[in-house]
Amino acid sequence: MADDRQTRDAELDKAIGELVAANRILADQGVVDAYGHVSMRHPHDKNLFLLSCSRSPELVEPQDIMTFRLDGSPADGRTDNPYVERFIHCGAYESAPDVMAVVHSHALAVLPFSISSTPLKTVIHTASHIGETIPVWDSQDKFGDTGLLVSDMEQGRDLARVLGHNRVALMRGHGFTAAGRSLGEVLKISIYLPQNAQVYLDAMRLGGTIKCITPGEMAIRDSFGPGGRELARAIEYWANRAGCGHYLRYKKTK
Amino acid sequence: MADDRQTRDAELDKAIGELVAANRILADQGVVDAYGHVSMRHPHDKNLFLLSCSRSPELVEPQDIMTFRLDGSPADGRTDNPYVERFIHCGAYESAPDVMAVVHSHALAVLPFSISSTPLKTVIHTASHIGETIPVWDSQDKFGDTGLLVSDMEQGRDLARVLGHNRVALMRGHGFTAAGRSLGEVLKISIYLPQNAQVYLDAMRLGGTIKCITPGEMAIRDSFGPGGRELARAIEYWANRAGCGHYLRYKKTK
Amino acid sequence: MADDRQTRDAELDKAIGELVAANRILADQGVVDAYGHVSMRHPHDKNLFLLSCSRSPELVEPQDIMTFRLDGSPADGRTDNPYVERFIHCGAYESAPDVMAVVHSHALAVLPFSISSTPLKTVIHTASHIGETIPVWDSQDKFGDTGLLVSDMEQGRDLARVLGHNRVALMRGHGFTAAGRSLGEVLKISIYLPQNAQVYLDAMRLGGTIKCITPGEMAIRDSFGPGGRELARAIEYWANRAGCGHYLRYKKTK
Amino acid sequence: MADDRQTRDAELDKAIGELVAANRILADQGVVDAYGHVSMRHPHDKNLFLLSCSRSPELVEPQDIMTFRLDGSPADGRTDNPYVERFIHCGAYESAPDVMAVVHSHALAVLPFSISSTPLKTVIHTASHIGETIPVWDSQDKFGDTGLLVSDMEQGRDLARVLGHNRVALMRGHGFTAAGRSLGEVLKISIYLPQNAQVYLDAMRLGGTIKCITPGEMAIRDSFGPGGRELARAIEYWANRAGCGHYLRYKKTK
Repeated sequence: MADDRQTRDAELDKAIGELVAANRILADQGVVDAYGHVSMRHPHDKNLFLLSCSRSPELVEPQDIMTFRLDGSPADGRTDNPYVERFIHCGAYESAPDVMAVVHSHALAVLPFSISSTPLKTVIHTASHIGETIPVWDSQDKFGDTGLLVSDMEQGRDLARVLGHNRVALMRGHGFTAAGRSLGEVLKISIYLPQNAQVYLDAMRLGGTIKCITPGEMAIRDSFGPGGRELARAIEYWANRAGCGHYLRYKKTK
Repeated sequence: MADDRQTRDAELDKAIGELVAANRILADQGVVDAYGHVSMRHPHDKNLFLLSCSRSPELVEPQDIMTFRLDGSPADGRTDNPYVERFIHCGAYESAPDVMAVVHSHALAVLPFSISSTPLKTVIHTASHIGETIPVWDSQDKFGDTGLLVSDMEQGRDLARVLGHNRVALMRGHGFTAAGRSLGEVLKISIYLPQNAQVYLDAMRLGGTIKCITPGEMAIRDSFGPGGRELARAIEYWANRAGCGHYLRYKKTK
Repeated sequence: MADDRQTRDAELDKAIGELVAANRILADQGVVDAYGHVSMRHPHDKNLFLLSCSRSPELVEPQDIMTFRLDGSPADGRTDNPYVERFIHCGAYESAPDVMAVVHSHALAVLPFSISSTPLKTVIHTASHIGETIPVWDSQDKFGDTGLLVSDMEQGRDLARVLGHNRVALMRGHGFTAAGRSLGEVLKISIYLPQNAQVYLDAMRLGGTIKCITPGEMAIRDSFGPGGRELARAIEYWANRAGCGHYLRYKKTK
Repeated sequence: MADDRQTRDAELDKAIGELVAANRILADQGVVDAYGHVSMRHPHDKNLFLLSCSRSPELVEPQDIMTFRLDGSPADGRTDNPYVERFIHCGAYESAPDVMAVVHSHALAVLPFSISSTPLKTVIHTASHIGETIPVWDSQDKFGDTGLLVSDMEQGRDLARVLGHNRVALMRGHGFTAAGRSLGEVLKISIYLPQNAQVYLDAMRLGGTIKCITPGEMAIRDSFGPGGRELARAIEYWANRAGCGHYLRYKKTK
């Protein structure tokens, strides 16, 4: 039983270290700035998730990682300031059991498609996990004028409804939310979504016809699964650039 | 009374430290380069303001901060070279008592809108403090051909007239001036205004219709006030990136 | 005979060091990121080539360099993970004996031209080695829906067929492959191809007519050869920026 | 007389240090990369100029600075490799006695205007020293197909003829040449010319009418002269960013 306890502690340490690294990787890759956040489902309880207290992702440390219930309330008795928009994560985990990690970002390259009637398409193979449909959630549709923050469960659930079974939903004038089957998958999606948007925007400027990634191609690539050694190679690279490789070997000293 | 003196000294030290950090943050965020400046109203006298002598913002140190009267004359007996364009700040403080901090910048992403007949709109929520109207000041209108510098009170006042109760005025072929209710607010506006311009420009290229931030949404966001913990999070991040966090704890040794 | 052996060892060391430096230069110049790779033909056997095991180019070390046969099988008995897409290199070396080095990249500036019906043209003199024709390989044409990876010899040969005697082939929704007569030449092509794409895209936005590099100009520049002191100057610069100059003096301690 | 000699040595040291700093500033500001160069007229002899041997500007050291005659031959007996394109500088100095410094660059933002029938205009005040007319030199006009390098006096003189009394000439598919009345002026022009091109390109995308800097405004700004404390502020900033401030205090140990 002591062994079991130790194994579980080690699993949680590993998850926390990976989540801290994910925060810093997203900052280094320009996906998040002062704002934006990334969470993962708790490794031992599907009704909880891990998310930093209110800090910019580049600065997140292991001790900043809090545990939340799916209604956004802290489950660890901590009284640190949480992110106002943690309900984005709540909605995504509550609505789909296969969602294991969530990113919320204001990445600039994606924003034009969130305010335009022209939809974003998937055109580069590194972004193929995004899938065929990229819905846009506009808080006006259900809530009228708001402060444009997802600050309660009702809004978080409405965003999750629009996200549906897709991997990414754009948020009008605000950014995007990505939901992945693993932390690595949601990192890859979040890093290549802005690049895909930039390429598609530039291709439209060329004035010719554009060939997107086909549904069949996406299905084949998706069948490779959310991880694998191609992703491991990328994580090694991203972590090295962000100078956060040591968090991938994080072990709390009790 | 000695205590009162110490409190006031500490308040001034704090203001100077924050202003130095603001200079360096704007440089690190690409809002200013060799040129551009940021000022704040004096914490103890509404008829004075603090502004660096003529140095590039990235290099400003506490000893560079001078005190000016609202007509642009030095109020501290110093004979350092002042910025030629300090009258931008004079005009803004003189015309509106709620203006507590001013930024002048040549940010590239904003400049196209300063020379085009197509007006800039507010489209991303991080820029919502800019407000509904972004006027363009053209020195030609009143002064004809000039050196395009705001180099006296008459020009500073004319710019302030065009700025009016708005937070930002573009300056034709020159840049922008932003006026905030706090130093933090004017930093946030100055950092997200160029991003907003980039997103709007890119959205226009998509050829569809564009949905801006609505007046109602702006009003709600503005009601959150100019500061709060969301802004504190951003300042911690910006200062860390600029390597100037120590100025936020600045204390002059007398 | 011992001398001959030492000479050959030194030649191989030199090649490995240059290939490691090439990996890091391409990463530093933004041509490759987590993905992409560069290879060179073996200095002593035209039926072999040198290529890293599956690592991101920025992290490649001399001990990562493996030796492959032209069918993609390891020729050195090593069991490290190879790149899935090593068949890109196999096809290029097999089809053209003058190809001495190959780069595969997902560079963003090139991607719009890989999905658009508007062809890329050579417009800047630093990219003149690319030549007149830049074909686009679409795996759909022969293979229908795939995972968009060049993962076997049949695909590698089909890509090489489309590449033909040109220096560069774009790959639809994927990136480009460049084949050079020397490692230095393929570096120069790979670095300036994205810049050429950016310039051509921007020139098209200007709405006027565009003058490309003429076939005669390309022929004259190509006659200068693939190297020379102009290229040596660039390699010194690229290596210095990437902090990898020491690999250009690499000597394995046996 | 010994004093006179020392003064002249000190003047030459100062010039060499400033030229080295100028090389590194242009590299740091992204105006030059592996290629491109900057020269200045010799402080003691108007028939000579100082220019590095064939090295990338970011790496230039004081000992790389050579002395050339206006026909491009070395005047100091050194046998280092010179830049092939030193004739760009020769032509500019020979044709206009007020030209004291010359930059040649391939800056990407300028290149679209060198290949398009749409002319570049001056639209931002920091670029106002460029002047009203920015001619484009196309080597095809006089020389037909060439290697697109300015590699002899005839070409250098033809480029100088097109440059005329302007500060900048674009070179088709190649880059630009800027000629200044001081080293500081040519730095400022070279740094803000690409920014001006970017702003003008973006403004054209907005679809409205565009207001350029007026001839009257340019004349007034030009009357401020090529230097002054506004320029000194910029040089301090550029040198600090490039980490080359010590070259501005360079003194050769004899």
